[in-house]
Amino acid sequence: MDHLERLSDLLVQTNELFYDIFSEVVGRYGISYAEVFVLKHIMESPRTIGELSKLSGFPYSTISGVVDRLEKDAYVVRQKDQNDRRVVWVCLAGDLEQLEQRLPFMSKTYLGELFAGMTKEEVEQICQSFMLVNRYLQEKLAAQAERERK
Amino acid sequence: MDHLERLSDLLVQTNELFYDIFSEVVGRYGISYAEVFVLKHIMESPRTIGELSKLSGFPYSTISGVVDRLEKDAYVVRQKDQNDRRVVWVCLAGDLEQLEQRLPFMSKTYLGELFAGMTKEEVEQICQSFMLVNRYLQEKLAAQAERERK
Repeated sequence: MDHLERLSDLLVQTNELFYDIFSEVVGRYGISYAEVFVLKHIMESPRTIGELSKLSGFPYSTISGVVDRLEKDAYVVRQKDQNDRRVVWVCLAGDLEQLEQRLPFMSKTYLGELFAGMTKEEVEQICQSFMLVNRYLQEKLAAQAERERK
Repeated sequence: MDHLERLSDLLVQTNELFYDIFSEVVGRYGISYAEVFVLKHIMESPRTIGELSKLSGFPYSTISGVVDRLEKDAYVVRQKDQNDRRVVWVCLAGDLEQLEQRLPFMSKTYLGELFAGMTKEEVEQICQSFMLVNRYLQEKLAAQAERERK
């Protein structure tokens, strides 16, 4: 098999494994993927429903429904913009720490816990590889941006 | 920094880089993430709107709208079940090859192309690491399944 094909197969498998693990975890906390998607973006900064709709490709009404459920479960609040009252921001109801206490899998350390039990050498080897992967992806992204400028 | 924390950071970065690259690519082909999500699942086997709704956590009406757009663009067709006419399957309009010709980023080889230019040794190193990562994830998944059985 071509060596890049083998790498593709492994990446697809990694992706599917992460998906399976998180599906089970997410289901256990009674929250949907759609809600996790919205929370992930809100964690970075408040967003409008319009922005979330554009980011996801789902219609405004759908995202509004997802935000309704998150609001009902006290994960987020809607807040009017102080300067322009027509603009409504979706914000975290509490702080990041509170969110991560309710949904531990949203925390960055959760990913690390998936690999608890690995030796330091194994972690070092994997870190080296991911650094290499990320460097290639960054170059790819820069090349994409370059093409767009033209 | 704790070594597992470093691994988490790198994984989060890898994930974000993939997301950024695919966002740009997906946008270029005038298709939304929601549509790609549906196509990904349909590529494996025909699905009902109800199944797709359950898989994504989005309401039936939303997925139905996504399938409408995919049908309009001749990516999928709705087909009545031969035994039970009340059941409607969403299927690919053509074969996999045709889909991958229209949307090259849906093809497995596209992932490999992202890493074109890597040396054989680099690919080998990364494959070894991903095999290790996948082994840990598989163990995690097996442990989850074990807990559920109890």
